[in-house]
Amino acid sequence: MNYSIIIHIIGWILKFQAAFMALPLVTSLIYREKDGFIFLIIIGLCLLAGTALTFKKPANNVFHTKEGCVIVALSWIVLSLTGALPFTLSGSIPNYIDAIFETVSGFTTTGASVLSRVEALSHCMLIWRSFTHWIGGMGVLVFLLCLLPQINGYHMSLMRAESPGPTVSKLVPKVQSTAKILYTIYFGMTMLQILLLLLGKMPLFDAICTAFGTAGTGGFGIHSDSIAGYSTYIQVVVTIFMILFGVNFTFYYLVLTKKIRTALKIEEVRVYFATIVLSVLVIAVNIRHLYGNMGIALKDAAFQVGSIITTTGFATADFNLWPELSRTILVLLMFIGACAGSTGGGIKVSRLIILFKAIRKELVLYLHPSAVKKVKMDGKSIPHEVVRSTNIFMSTYVLIFAVSVLIISLDNFDLITNFTSVAATLNNIGPGLEVVGPTGNFAMFSYPSKIVLIFDMLAGRLEIFPLLLLFSKSTWKKF
Amino acid sequence: MNYSIIIHIIGWILKFQAAFMALPLVTSLIYREKDGFIFLIIIGLCLLAGTALTFKKPANNVFHTKEGCVIVALSWIVLSLTGALPFTLSGSIPNYIDAIFETVSGFTTTGASVLSRVEALSHCMLIWRSFTHWIGGMGVLVFLLCLLPQINGYHMSLMRAESPGPTVSKLVPKVQSTAKILYTIYFGMTMLQILLLLLGKMPLFDAICTAFGTAGTGGFGIHSDSIAGYSTYIQVVVTIFMILFGVNFTFYYLVLTKKIRTALKIEEVRVYFATIVLSVLVIAVNIRHLYGNMGIALKDAAFQVGSIITTTGFATADFNLWPELSRTILVLLMFIGACAGSTGGGIKVSRLIILFKAIRKELVLYLHPSAVKKVKMDGKSIPHEVVRSTNIFMSTYVLIFAVSVLIISLDNFDLITNFTSVAATLNNIGPGLEVVGPTGNFAMFSYPSKIVLIFDMLAGRLEIFPLLLLFSKSTWKKF
Repeated sequence: MNYSIIIHIIGWILKFQAAFMALPLVTSLIYREKDGFIFLIIIGLCLLAGTALTFKKPANNVFHTKEGCVIVALSWIVLSLTGALPFTLSGSIPNYIDAIFETVSGFTTTGASVLSRVEALSHCMLIWRSFTHWIGGMGVLVFLLCLLPQINGYHMSLMRAESPGPTVSKLVPKVQSTAKILYTIYFGMTMLQILLLLLGKMPLFDAICTAFGTAGTGGFGIHSDSIAGYSTYIQVVVTIFMILFGVNFTFYYLVLTKKIRTALKIEEVRVYFATIVLSVLVIAVNIRHLYGNMGIALKDAAFQVGSIITTTGFATADFNLWPELSRTILVLLMFIGACAGSTGGGIKVSRLIILFKAIRKELVLYLHPSAVKKVKMDGKSIPHEVVRSTNIFMSTYVLIFAVSVLIISLDNFDLITNFTSVAATLNNIGPGLEVVGPTGNFAMFSYPSKIVLIFDMLAGRLEIFPLLLLFSKSTWKKF
Repeated sequence: MNYSIIIHIIGWILKFQAAFMALPLVTSLIYREKDGFIFLIIIGLCLLAGTALTFKKPANNVFHTKEGCVIVALSWIVLSLTGALPFTLSGSIPNYIDAIFETVSGFTTTGASVLSRVEALSHCMLIWRSFTHWIGGMGVLVFLLCLLPQINGYHMSLMRAESPGPTVSKLVPKVQSTAKILYTIYFGMTMLQILLLLLGKMPLFDAICTAFGTAGTGGFGIHSDSIAGYSTYIQVVVTIFMILFGVNFTFYYLVLTKKIRTALKIEEVRVYFATIVLSVLVIAVNIRHLYGNMGIALKDAAFQVGSIITTTGFATADFNLWPELSRTILVLLMFIGACAGSTGGGIKVSRLIILFKAIRKELVLYLHPSAVKKVKMDGKSIPHEVVRSTNIFMSTYVLIFAVSVLIISLDNFDLITNFTSVAATLNNIGPGLEVVGPTGNFAMFSYPSKIVLIFDMLAGRLEIFPLLLLFSKSTWKKF
């Protein structure tokens, strides 16, 4: 393990954190909120620590997957621990573990909250809370790649550890250029959404926060009723953008480079849209009698389906009160999740496609043990290692899921609450059902349970392995 | 596809079915019940049809995995369809789909019932219901292997398709001899249990039915309160035998051939017992306050844990009322299931061991992509194909689970009922939680839902692939 490079990059992460906090600081100046002083102090501390850690150049540049995983996992932990300080120091969220829960929920784009009345927060706290979604959505290390060209040879390891999905698709040969393209698309789409929200007469502050929550597929709202209080136009804009941010960004790159045919042929994107359309239709029919109007039923079904499959977690309706079929569809969508290479969470559509094709292949092999058959996607055959690690991902996922439900069951809430709490955190969604439904929150869990759910949120965002490797002895061997 | 051999063996299955029904027929004579006539008629019909189908020798003896799977799947379906007739014709279960549910539940050793008062059944119906457990526990085709030596070359295919677990362990080189040894152990242990139950002053009829339900890890009781009404001695005997029938039968073979050291080293058996002991202790502590006495708490915890992990489904306590931690442990045990090569269901301990080791291996490979590492069990390395098909098994299992929950959610019961109904049928356990808890039953589900659950029970018992292959086009190609 090359400790010197790890320390160096963690130093950079602290400097970045200081830069990120400039946004709430500026916000506090505009709204003349005294919480701004807290951000100022923490920015100072982060800069100080960051400079100290990056002062010395790393002793050697040995950089393997191991270092990549550890750096990604530690970076996210450091960001969360420092990002939670403003909430606790300002008294907005007095308990530090609660504040960490909220911040991890922000960075991992989960959107699960311990707050029952978000309106009580100051503007600078609200924008910081939503900004964490935006930062976490595309990834911090990927952002770092855009800006720090001088340290070489570790790009792919970092990208692989932080990007969601079974494989990393490099849009262009250079990893760094790929990162820049991704962030440009991300930034552009966010701006477009803010513009469209402003056109719907949403106040600028609301528009920025809502766009951050949508772009990162996070889900923190700035009102207790989430998006329900806004106009139909705004709800429709948010619906569309949630679904767009759940699309594999390769799609946008292909569209921008005018390879529209290739873009439209991406299997994952097709299955993703087909799933959305089908779910919306079935739910709309199922809930129609509650609304008495197919139009409203369709709008609410589309919003909730988009919110859950992209793992955003905004809400315009309390789907807790919907019939069991609709609730079950939403629970299943929680697990499916968005496309790989998007800002969304969950198992990812492409993983499920791979698993489904592997099952088909297995059935053939069962009959003809000597047959040679490859798992293919988008016309290319998927390497054996990807199929294997996708399978293992599923097993690990189920294992972590089961252990988490077991531990939090000590709090003695009902099984649906426990099951959907873990589903909502491990898939980075936000709300679950029953106690943690769209109108509820996670405040009533005990601190041990909250720590388990914090772990689940991080495991979900980093797709398990980088986080698990922190607990493996062989990771920490000197070489 | 070699249709002639399939027809031939289905013919033999019908003759066997006639032979099996001799037991309820004799019972009806003893208790002078007129339901006996119904059994007499069906025996006649089965013999007639069986003789017609076996009259002609199969045109050719080509026999592959494909034929093996189809024969196993069709045999179980034929057994269930004919086995359900007595219930409907006698009026005990007037609706034929309900009767099929009950019979499939019997043969697959699930023990889920649509009856609210089993006491209303005649003795011959009760013994037939319990006998289906015993027949299904060790497998019908394996039984057929013991008796039909003349048709050669298909032994291993049948054994592989019908036996539970990731691999089939042949105890001795000849498959037929293995089948005979297995049935001898099975028969011997059942007799021993009947004897011990008689010593506890249980009536002979009760003892036979209870032993059938225990040996097959089925769970049909002959009283509405399952085993709760019997003495502590009897409850303890049943607890011990449930757990013993969940052990890999290889263990007993090794013990009988005096290879006790090797037997004690089987990893699966060790993990199985460790899981049981740990679960019993945690649950006993967790429920102690409900009983006020650690002894009773331990006894009830052991009974329920043994009943659930072996997927038997007998009950002495309504665990629906237990605290959430205990309920969650039981739900997790539902999925773990018994050992491979036992009569129990579920995912199987050995599959989970393989998955767990594959995860460990994947973590190493994540760090050192070029490392060569094998998954080992009991000192032997597990073939790559077994690891792969175990992984695929898990994915298919999860997929079938999700689709089943989705379909039965149309009945609008709560999510826990739906989730545990599928868990209880797909794992061949019997009771779930809430509406289908130990004091409830499956009668209130709609017929479409019951058909889904019937499919799940069969898929669980045959471990998915043989049943799925029935729906694959390539299975039905002529050659």
